[in-house]
Amino acid sequence: MFYHNPRLQYPVRVETPNPVFAKMLQQAIGGIEGEIRVCLQSLFPAWGRPPSEVKYCDMLLHTGTDEISHIEMLCTAVALNLDGAPAELQDEGAKNPMVAAIMGGMDPRHYLSTGFNAMAADSNGVPFNGSWVVGSGNLVADMTANVMAESTGRLLATRLFHMTADPGMKDMLRVLSARDTRHLPQWRAVIEEQGGITGGLPIPGSFPDAEMFEAPHVEEMNLAYAFMGTGTADAPAPPEGRFTSGPSVDGKGTFSVIEQMQPLGEVPVRAEPPPYTFNQNMPDDRGPLKKASDAIQELL
Amino acid sequence: MFYHNPRLQYPVRVETPNPVFAKMLQQAIGGIEGEIRVCLQSLFPAWGRPPSEVKYCDMLLHTGTDEISHIEMLCTAVALNLDGAPAELQDEGAKNPMVAAIMGGMDPRHYLSTGFNAMAADSNGVPFNGSWVVGSGNLVADMTANVMAESTGRLLATRLFHMTADPGMKDMLRVLSARDTRHLPQWRAVIEEQGGITGGLPIPGSFPDAEMFEAPHVEEMNLAYAFMGTGTADAPAPPEGRFTSGPSVDGKGTFSVIEQMQPLGEVPVRAEPPPYTFNQNMPDDRGPLKKASDAIQELL
Amino acid sequence: MFYHNPRLQYPVRVETPNPVFAKMLQQAIGGIEGEIRVCLQSLFPAWGRPPSEVKYCDMLLHTGTDEISHIEMLCTAVALNLDGAPAELQDEGAKNPMVAAIMGGMDPRHYLSTGFNAMAADSNGVPFNGSWVVGSGNLVADMTANVMAESTGRLLATRLFHMTADPGMKDMLRVLSARDTRHLPQWRAVIEEQGGITGGLPIPGSFPDAEMFEAPHVEEMNLAYAFMGTGTADAPAPPEGRFTSGPSVDGKGTFSVIEQMQPLGEVPVRAEPPPYTFNQNMPDDRGPLKKASDAIQELL
Amino acid sequence: MFYHNPRLQYPVRVETPNPVFAKMLQQAIGGIEGEIRVCLQSLFPAWGRPPSEVKYCDMLLHTGTDEISHIEMLCTAVALNLDGAPAELQDEGAKNPMVAAIMGGMDPRHYLSTGFNAMAADSNGVPFNGSWVVGSGNLVADMTANVMAESTGRLLATRLFHMTADPGMKDMLRVLSARDTRHLPQWRAVIEEQGGITGGLPIPGSFPDAEMFEAPHVEEMNLAYAFMGTGTADAPAPPEGRFTSGPSVDGKGTFSVIEQMQPLGEVPVRAEPPPYTFNQNMPDDRGPLKKASDAIQELL
Amino acid sequence: MFYHNPRLQYPVRVETPNPVFAKMLQQAIGGIEGEIRVCLQSLFPAWGRPPSEVKYCDMLLHTGTDEISHIEMLCTAVALNLDGAPAELQDEGAKNPMVAAIMGGMDPRHYLSTGFNAMAADSNGVPFNGSWVVGSGNLVADMTANVMAESTGRLLATRLFHMTADPGMKDMLRVLSARDTRHLPQWRAVIEEQGGITGGLPIPGSFPDAEMFEAPHVEEMNLAYAFMGTGTADAPAPPEGRFTSGPSVDGKGTFSVIEQMQPLGEVPVRAEPPPYTFNQNMPDDRGPLKKASDAIQELL
Amino acid sequence: MFYHNPRLQYPVRVETPNPVFAKMLQQAIGGIEGEIRVCLQSLFPAWGRPPSEVKYCDMLLHTGTDEISHIEMLCTAVALNLDGAPAELQDEGAKNPMVAAIMGGMDPRHYLSTGFNAMAADSNGVPFNGSWVVGSGNLVADMTANVMAESTGRLLATRLFHMTADPGMKDMLRVLSARDTRHLPQWRAVIEEQGGITGGLPIPGSFPDAEMFEAPHVEEMNLAYAFMGTGTADAPAPPEGRFTSGPSVDGKGTFSVIEQMQPLGEVPVRAEPPPYTFNQNMPDDRGPLKKASDAIQELL
Repeated sequence: MFYHNPRLQYPVRVETPNPVFAKMLQQAIGGIEGEIRVCLQSLFPAWGRPPSEVKYCDMLLHTGTDEISHIEMLCTAVALNLDGAPAELQDEGAKNPMVAAIMGGMDPRHYLSTGFNAMAADSNGVPFNGSWVVGSGNLVADMTANVMAESTGRLLATRLFHMTADPGMKDMLRVLSARDTRHLPQWRAVIEEQGGITGGLPIPGSFPDAEMFEAPHVEEMNLAYAFMGTGTADAPAPPEGRFTSGPSVDGKGTFSVIEQMQPLGEVPVRAEPPPYTFNQNMPDDRGPLKKASDAIQELL
Repeated sequence: MFYHNPRLQYPVRVETPNPVFAKMLQQAIGGIEGEIRVCLQSLFPAWGRPPSEVKYCDMLLHTGTDEISHIEMLCTAVALNLDGAPAELQDEGAKNPMVAAIMGGMDPRHYLSTGFNAMAADSNGVPFNGSWVVGSGNLVADMTANVMAESTGRLLATRLFHMTADPGMKDMLRVLSARDTRHLPQWRAVIEEQGGITGGLPIPGSFPDAEMFEAPHVEEMNLAYAFMGTGTADAPAPPEGRFTSGPSVDGKGTFSVIEQMQPLGEVPVRAEPPPYTFNQNMPDDRGPLKKASDAIQELL
Repeated sequence: MFYHNPRLQYPVRVETPNPVFAKMLQQAIGGIEGEIRVCLQSLFPAWGRPPSEVKYCDMLLHTGTDEISHIEMLCTAVALNLDGAPAELQDEGAKNPMVAAIMGGMDPRHYLSTGFNAMAADSNGVPFNGSWVVGSGNLVADMTANVMAESTGRLLATRLFHMTADPGMKDMLRVLSARDTRHLPQWRAVIEEQGGITGGLPIPGSFPDAEMFEAPHVEEMNLAYAFMGTGTADAPAPPEGRFTSGPSVDGKGTFSVIEQMQPLGEVPVRAEPPPYTFNQNMPDDRGPLKKASDAIQELL
Repeated sequence: MFYHNPRLQYPVRVETPNPVFAKMLQQAIGGIEGEIRVCLQSLFPAWGRPPSEVKYCDMLLHTGTDEISHIEMLCTAVALNLDGAPAELQDEGAKNPMVAAIMGGMDPRHYLSTGFNAMAADSNGVPFNGSWVVGSGNLVADMTANVMAESTGRLLATRLFHMTADPGMKDMLRVLSARDTRHLPQWRAVIEEQGGITGGLPIPGSFPDAEMFEAPHVEEMNLAYAFMGTGTADAPAPPEGRFTSGPSVDGKGTFSVIEQMQPLGEVPVRAEPPPYTFNQNMPDDRGPLKKASDAIQELL
Repeated sequence: MFYHNPRLQYPVRVETPNPVFAKMLQQAIGGIEGEIRVCLQSLFPAWGRPPSEVKYCDMLLHTGTDEISHIEMLCTAVALNLDGAPAELQDEGAKNPMVAAIMGGMDPRHYLSTGFNAMAADSNGVPFNGSWVVGSGNLVADMTANVMAESTGRLLATRLFHMTADPGMKDMLRVLSARDTRHLPQWRAVIEEQGGITGGLPIPGSFPDAEMFEAPHVEEMNLAYAFMGTGTADAPAPPEGRFTSGPSVDGKGTFSVIEQMQPLGEVPVRAEPPPYTFNQNMPDDRGPLKKASDAIQELL
Repeated sequence: MFYHNPRLQYPVRVETPNPVFAKMLQQAIGGIEGEIRVCLQSLFPAWGRPPSEVKYCDMLLHTGTDEISHIEMLCTAVALNLDGAPAELQDEGAKNPMVAAIMGGMDPRHYLSTGFNAMAADSNGVPFNGSWVVGSGNLVADMTANVMAESTGRLLATRLFHMTADPGMKDMLRVLSARDTRHLPQWRAVIEEQGGITGGLPIPGSFPDAEMFEAPHVEEMNLAYAFMGTGTADAPAPPEGRFTSGPSVDGKGTFSVIEQMQPLGEVPVRAEPPPYTFNQNMPDDRGPLKKASDAIQELL
């Protein structure tokens, strides 16, 4: 069950409201790198079955609740950046080309749809999309999803930080960045508890190697650890790096290189489409079609 | 520049076509865990500016091209699983409840929209969405995005593997699983080359800790490494684990716990909305509104 | 700032897990009538500028927080309905056609994407969409948006209630229904405080009638209160009801009827497209086009 | 069946074309507050089963047809606002910074995709989405959906009105505003005919109170009419208003306040995920997994 | 301006209601091949600037209005197919596996969201999307868009026709098919009026060949009319057909074949990302970053 | 199977980077008229069942692979147009209003989300959508879909061409335009091989005319070839053109005109909604409702 305190988790203040920066902040609210995603991506698995131990549900509940407070801070920041902005425009807009450019860069829906409040959308006005909430049920997979979300989230916070000179906005972004800094090793610590890179990979660990090796060519060509070159005959050789030789990072195989992969399959042979697909232009003969359609109708 | 060979990278065969399994396979084509995403998520960064060394663009080009061949294999598998299925239905449907259930579970657009071919959509018919293609420009962040995509991708392949008894489908999924097994440590190997978990975290590495510490409370409360308890006063204490004490996984701080975080901010005070938002029901006085609207119009 | 208690707001129990009902419940989580929408639609305005008095932000914060607990309950219910279901299928599926039908009706992503947990999507697997979160900034408009969301939400809860015989699910839906019962008059009470139907309508109240009357025909044809018949000459007359005669419900006009509206405008005359739209197939003359494109390029 | 007259319902003229205003008008065409939504939201229920009396289908048909004419007017207005604009830019753009700002604020797809015509999208270019068309089948619920759509629609028209000084655009928006003024009490008049706020609420009226009271705590805690405080122990008390005491607005209960709601449920206990979810990293043992997957395959 | 007659354009009757067929019909309403798209795709250009002669706007208005009547017919058909269906289920469902399968295949939102009416969505419940409404402004391009929409629309009608044995549904689909039969040559007749395949292609005709030939290699390699082989060295030669030799269908060039296209470009060289992208992990030096961020802030 | 060569198919160079033009180019990558759509629209049918002869799968594979190279070129062009742009802004932005306007017109996600690389989105940042990939299975229908995609694609390339003065960009767009010039008659050549406009229309050819004529009125009113006037009684007569008289373009009928179509159907009569829809406000009687809900529950 959830509770709130009307005070903010961290002070949000804006000295110089800037409606273009309000638009930029939307990316951190409703963008794929934003806080609604991170929040729901913690809470949905927390509300699901325990991935292995109940304590991970607890952990996700704590952090997911923390993220609601971040959405609150960012929405507050959007509203504050929209404060009084049009007034400034009235005074200076006609004279100052930069102010005019800012007005051109404002999200029109911040006026038309919300009356100068935040929206559940990104910096282009594209709405938040629930498909971004990844919760696979597998703890290690979900921790990698969180690592990814925090990484791009902190990168976004950093870029936003460098777009603003407002001391209040800089402090808020410093703190959001600090929290991402915290969460990232938190998710990795769970991976470590689950066996680490060596023990925890590949995901899911319960799909045994022997199963993969039953398919022809997998073992003999080292398909589970070979870098597959897809360059043409006259293209340079594949690049070399930690990913092309030596033991695999998961400690379970040896990296190798297939300079140029050759097709193992044939040109696929697919059955002709049945008449009732109408994929082919057939003679005007109602016999076979009628029979097919009768059969479908009987079933439906 | 891209080339093709009409033969498949790996043989795709289906002994017993199953239109419900065709629907399930769509998740691996156009779902968020699917191959179109993984493919474009490799190619778009490969077509961008070199994240640090050109060899990573090369690596991504090779692997992204590999993934096109996987989409091809899966689309072929969908078409083969739709082969002849309705014919079977015609013979058995009315008698066999299981076959009838299968027909109920088929994607209707596999008949209505494609004439028994694959679609760029997931297992519920929800179209592929370009927002899933994450390419942040930061190499380590993008590698974590790939680790995440391969993790959920391999998990999906495993679940699909356990839904089918068809030997051809099992072989194809074994190979796709082997390739995911390969790619996952490949992306981690790059992270290792870039400094590993210790050196490569947090992302971006170029946002210095000192910058975070400039915001009040960050250093003193260890906000960059403290687990933040958000339970109410009468809730149990936060869980304990590798993520609550000891050195942080990124080697740069020490994990601690804030048992119950207290609000550091105040109740936010926001300016009243200006009259031209019409957020408030105002007296029927055209004076101030007219003045505001004149000013806006002058600017636009 | 937000807090949680790991206990649920209200007990959620499922005696007979049913994966088809899990799919149905998704509509109440991630559908347009669902709780994510209602929750964000309370919180976003609460995080915006005070619509007229701060107490309304407070009210919205309390109720929006209440709704997070409802999402939690519903996600828990989805997980519980997916508990053990496949095991039952293993035992009975091949024999019992109804169980087989249920399996056909399960959301495939409940297995493929979440490992038997809830998703941020509706009962067809269509993801939650942030565009549904309406917060116009105008208090009365936003209260009508909430009235609408609660109305369709309670209707959905009622329909779900009648699809299940499970006593635990029935209790949960009774309580969700009771809360919707509460919220609906709550939002209307605010409208009453703001002047009620008579004082609060139309929205926004600050757009004066006199302004409307400045446009030709508006006053003389009573366009602000006339029911506009759009039937053809040979169609029946418009229907009669409370909405066609008598004082308008907002107490500001008199309902009338225009039996068949006639066009007041003319066939629109629009300028021909300029050459650089390439809307028209022009002669192969590079002169004028080149001039136009030079001009555009100079500007860009 | 539908008919048209090539003349417009109301004159649309633009004295000073303005491509930024064309972009703004898109919100009123393809935005969630726009006319495509309102139109389809009237027509879809009109084409469905009679909610209680056939006259309401008739009413919706008349008004829905009226709205098609509004889309036509707005699309005409977009085209007229795009007339000749680039020519003006050619003359003045390089000298006048405000004109240059306007060009930066134009929707690029108005040139690239439509050759200076309207689109089925909002002011950010986000496409119209069919999910916005709410038609629940319940007359009172659908009337509240219409009240909401008209409220935000009229608010949008008002904001647009205050962004333009063009006399033709002002007249068109005055008329659209007048029509919304009409429709709003029209939908409320239907609610009145259906029993009004007292008789028509809650929705659906056919879900009896007694049913709600069967769930534990509902009656004793007045869960159907209590304002639920979700503040933490140290937060201020819930706000007071018409919504916290006195008879409920629906005349069926008494408003009360639960100062701070306590969890009535327990920490949810969910079954462990079955092995074939691969949620857990299991030992490399093919026995149980194979058995599970065999069982699934038999069913599919 | 638009009008309606409450009678249907063509009789819609359903002898045997079938809720699965109701779901299938949704594809023809809100799917990409459906009538909402075709309708708006006629009306939006009709409401735009005249592509060359006003009569084409007239033509599009007539046909677009015709399509509204088709949406009405299909929505009526959905409602009729949902009539009484559950009653039948009550009688037979528990005994008849086929009826049970049908229930499994029904769209859940037809009950949960609409109370047995149609939705603005496709057969998988995916909402109609405004991006499908193509109106480029160029008459010939828009006619090809219509040809495409009618082609897939008639194909869909044909497939639906073969899924139903209901005489009423068959008649309705015969008529919809007849109308598509009409519209298809109608759009092609316009292309003929505009110069036909020879004169009207390529689109836009106003981009002169000479312009293309200014780019290196275009003329010498016949890039405007050569079939470009993209097979690898060991792949079979490109296929032969009308599209590989002889005069081009547009009468403006000669088809040829490039057996295997060779790259004309080099490996792209892109500038390193500037420091303020944080694409690279930089040393912890705040100097250059600060300078960059200062510069950005000055501008914003 | 797919291969690549790291060299580009055609040189991409940018002399004067322009971030606004980078945004415009996104339309050609991830817009509905863009190359991702064209690419997948060739490859998905190529990976499906042979529409009539295998050579068409081959043809589509060659051309679809060609299109991947175009996406690569355009993404490279976006990255190059974003090169160094902000540096220029730093120098000139504060002084030069035009540069400031450009900055206002840049896609914010090109900085915030990708670090100056391309995205899988259109020029408004709306993500690519898999629903645009049309592959109906019917060869002639799919060729018309391709004709449409190339037409709007070439129109887009032409418009982009006229927005830039950069010689490198002009060359790239000349070549893309040349390729579209090629593909358009290519798809039409296939239509010609399949019987041409006369033989190939209507689509699908296998739905016989006689079938249409079985529905009342179709033959007698020439519904398959009559232009249907939908104007009101006082509206002008339908326009005249090639599409209103003479032999139909498909050679199978004769164009005629129905001056004003009259409704052939009646006002639809639909059954009342059953009680368990809760569409109607019923008396507070639990008897019939309970019976209905028991019946539903038994089935589920």
